[in-house]
Amino acid sequence: MKRDYVCLGLLTSALAVAMSAVTAAGQQAPPQGPEIASYASVANKLIDAALGDTVAFTRLGEFVDTFGSRLSGTRSLETAIDWTLEKMKRDGLENVHGETVMVPHWVRGNESAEMIAPRFERLRMLGLGSSIGTPPDGITAPVLIVDSFDDLAKRVEEAKGKIVLFDVPFVSYPETVRYRVTGAVAAAKVGAVASLVRSIASFSIASPHTGNMRYDSTVKRIPSAAISSEDASLLHRIMARGQPPVLRLTMEATTLPDAVSRNVIAELRGREFPEEVVLLGGHIDSWDVGQGAMDDAGGMVAAWEAVRLMKVLGLRPRRTVRVVAWTNEENGGRGNLGYRDSHLAALSRHVLAIESDNGVFRPSGFRFSGSDSGLVVARQVAALLRRIGADTVETERNAPEADIAPLVERGVPGMGLNVDRTRYFWFHHSAGDTLDKLTPQDLSLCIATLAVMAYVVADLPQTLPRQSGR
Amino acid sequence: MKRDYVCLGLLTSALAVAMSAVTAAGQQAPPQGPEIASYASVANKLIDAALGDTVAFTRLGEFVDTFGSRLSGTRSLETAIDWTLEKMKRDGLENVHGETVMVPHWVRGNESAEMIAPRFERLRMLGLGSSIGTPPDGITAPVLIVDSFDDLAKRVEEAKGKIVLFDVPFVSYPETVRYRVTGAVAAAKVGAVASLVRSIASFSIASPHTGNMRYDSTVKRIPSAAISSEDASLLHRIMARGQPPVLRLTMEATTLPDAVSRNVIAELRGREFPEEVVLLGGHIDSWDVGQGAMDDAGGMVAAWEAVRLMKVLGLRPRRTVRVVAWTNEENGGRGNLGYRDSHLAALSRHVLAIESDNGVFRPSGFRFSGSDSGLVVARQVAALLRRIGADTVETERNAPEADIAPLVERGVPGMGLNVDRTRYFWFHHSAGDTLDKLTPQDLSLCIATLAVMAYVVADLPQTLPRQSGR
Repeated sequence: MKRDYVCLGLLTSALAVAMSAVTAAGQQAPPQGPEIASYASVANKLIDAALGDTVAFTRLGEFVDTFGSRLSGTRSLETAIDWTLEKMKRDGLENVHGETVMVPHWVRGNESAEMIAPRFERLRMLGLGSSIGTPPDGITAPVLIVDSFDDLAKRVEEAKGKIVLFDVPFVSYPETVRYRVTGAVAAAKVGAVASLVRSIASFSIASPHTGNMRYDSTVKRIPSAAISSEDASLLHRIMARGQPPVLRLTMEATTLPDAVSRNVIAELRGREFPEEVVLLGGHIDSWDVGQGAMDDAGGMVAAWEAVRLMKVLGLRPRRTVRVVAWTNEENGGRGNLGYRDSHLAALSRHVLAIESDNGVFRPSGFRFSGSDSGLVVARQVAALLRRIGADTVETERNAPEADIAPLVERGVPGMGLNVDRTRYFWFHHSAGDTLDKLTPQDLSLCIATLAVMAYVVADLPQTLPRQSGR
Repeated sequence: MKRDYVCLGLLTSALAVAMSAVTAAGQQAPPQGPEIASYASVANKLIDAALGDTVAFTRLGEFVDTFGSRLSGTRSLETAIDWTLEKMKRDGLENVHGETVMVPHWVRGNESAEMIAPRFERLRMLGLGSSIGTPPDGITAPVLIVDSFDDLAKRVEEAKGKIVLFDVPFVSYPETVRYRVTGAVAAAKVGAVASLVRSIASFSIASPHTGNMRYDSTVKRIPSAAISSEDASLLHRIMARGQPPVLRLTMEATTLPDAVSRNVIAELRGREFPEEVVLLGGHIDSWDVGQGAMDDAGGMVAAWEAVRLMKVLGLRPRRTVRVVAWTNEENGGRGNLGYRDSHLAALSRHVLAIESDNGVFRPSGFRFSGSDSGLVVARQVAALLRRIGADTVETERNAPEADIAPLVERGVPGMGLNVDRTRYFWFHHSAGDTLDKLTPQDLSLCIATLAVMAYVVADLPQTLPRQSGR
């Protein structure tokens, strides 16, 4: 889903504008800097309102404490969706409604992992989303520890009948998450009976991290789970001392028939071009551990509050600003596919899609997926956020945020809110993703950043330039 | 157990020496700085050996991985003691033996804590050491949340029949740990049916911290447990929204008859005054979660290695250097009481007792409990550690380290190894106290620091000055 963009970071804005006007034939010329600079006053109003805001953090707390975790298929997710729709209506937002999507219904059940030789130790584990379970008595087998797919390929002869542990040190999420997502397929291909992965985490206090995995229809399905970083290191050290550990993995995990869920939509309708849409949002579902406060209730609430503040301030931009709280981001992505499919004909009128899904920590700006000339405009708008240090727009170097990726793929310019991710992978998909990891101050800064970008792009006389011909 | 000392930090060493020579009548005059400075060469040898050492970290890993946690009364503690005695003998240390002490035998059993209203949530909990269990069906009651003993005193009328939660933000360990140790007594006095405490922790990833608690023979015993900081905050917020949580606490905890354990002793006998002892050590037992790597296998191994390196280097000080690995520091302190009682007649010939029990993180020097003139000498010796930044000796402002406290009380000068405790209370008494939280580099620095202080004090012509008349 990644697109390659040329970075224009070294060019001055003016030069880039000139170039894009030449190269992006058939597009509208992007707005000039001075025109955007005239939004300083309204931008400051939005920033002031966000910095003085207490509604959002209060609401975020009420949301995560009342509903807890919100895995697809659960009653807690659906009641959380009902609550959100109801509150959005009371906020006076427009066109508030849910859009049905069918979502996977994976159920964890009881589960455990134990080292039973050379001594007994209960391991800290979390089954991976979409995994099958084990037989009721579990799977007992020696472990084969590898540090990469290449390492596994070299040790194919040893894998048969083993539980493979991918003990891969955390480097970055994209680099390391591959072992969580496709480890079970790779292990099954060489005859392993189960697959474990060192938690995809940059720090741990005995805290395993779950996340989704995928099977391949051509390869036998084997159960798959994450163990804590500490336990992966323990097994590694014991193995290195010449005492091959034997493990027992027991998982009741099962996948039930798809369940009904909903994407949540709310709008501030545009005063001139209501059919043109600037979309911003986060996802409302979460894993079934912790509160999903960081991932991604905070992002959803920030986007929602950004639009609510526009309404409170009596600001109604030329185009429609639409909040989307996607369902099922975590284990299926059916929410974002459903949104794309339900709005297919309207995607050409989606001017921008913004997602916040890296925690509502201190924001620095955005990662941008789109045309070079779009990037220029985005940077001009972001300059309005200099006051709060959130004025950097960089080219997206990885895949766009998951929920806007299907839109970006169809030519919609996309932005991911960039935040301080120092601690994101300490808590991500773990029981430690709870409200206390976030602060009202950082949330306010995120709201301000989202509000200014969404409002100004929705109000500019011209639409954000798209990729040529899209 | 705390003693009040006058801080002489503002006086120059020379002045302090002069004063102590005048005031501490009947004591030997403390050695002069130049005499201690002549130990620079041997100190550097010890530091070099410690910095190049790999034995200790390897041994620490083998110790914690082989035996896991080592709660008093468990087979893992006793086999860990056997292993340690055996290795010490093989190291060629002298007078290696175990000294029997009877220790409390508390068994955790299965346990759980759940919020059952206003919705269900499984809380992260750990029963506190020495607590009684609940009836098999648990205790179900509304929670009363207080933030201090004063707060509880104000709300006595509300406490009857409730589960009291001491939701006290972490300030410092001595300030906060009171609620863990005596909370159950305070809660029972006002009619509570169980007592919970917010984990005594400065950071958490859904990680509860256990620790010991005490009953009072005049007050009804009620079960007591710690919950994670996150869960304490969750209950607090839900209560603040006017939805009083109802909890169910189930604990199988029970205390069996006292079990046999041992303090581990090993020595390098003094070449001139073998009956005079410089003691250094850590405790070999741990809580029953994690590995007790930081608390306190690291401290024990560091002290042991400090003495082993003296032997390897062919250094034999005038006085005996004795390693002690105390048992049962965590839930009873019977090891340190046993040591005191077994060596009562010899305590006057204990020149110094050093303990490392704050994790083998980067050391800065020592906290000193003893006479002013003793402090002067300690600082002169510590100056030999300037090269590794471990040359600060400050007056102990809290109680001495637990295992040397009974010795300090009897007049033995005491020192606690001072280390960077930034993360100590992130992991302390939790499942996250594992080998990966420590580094070979920091362990080496701790070994060097202990070795230099112990060796030089054991070899000085004169003994470390004691409190007058003790």
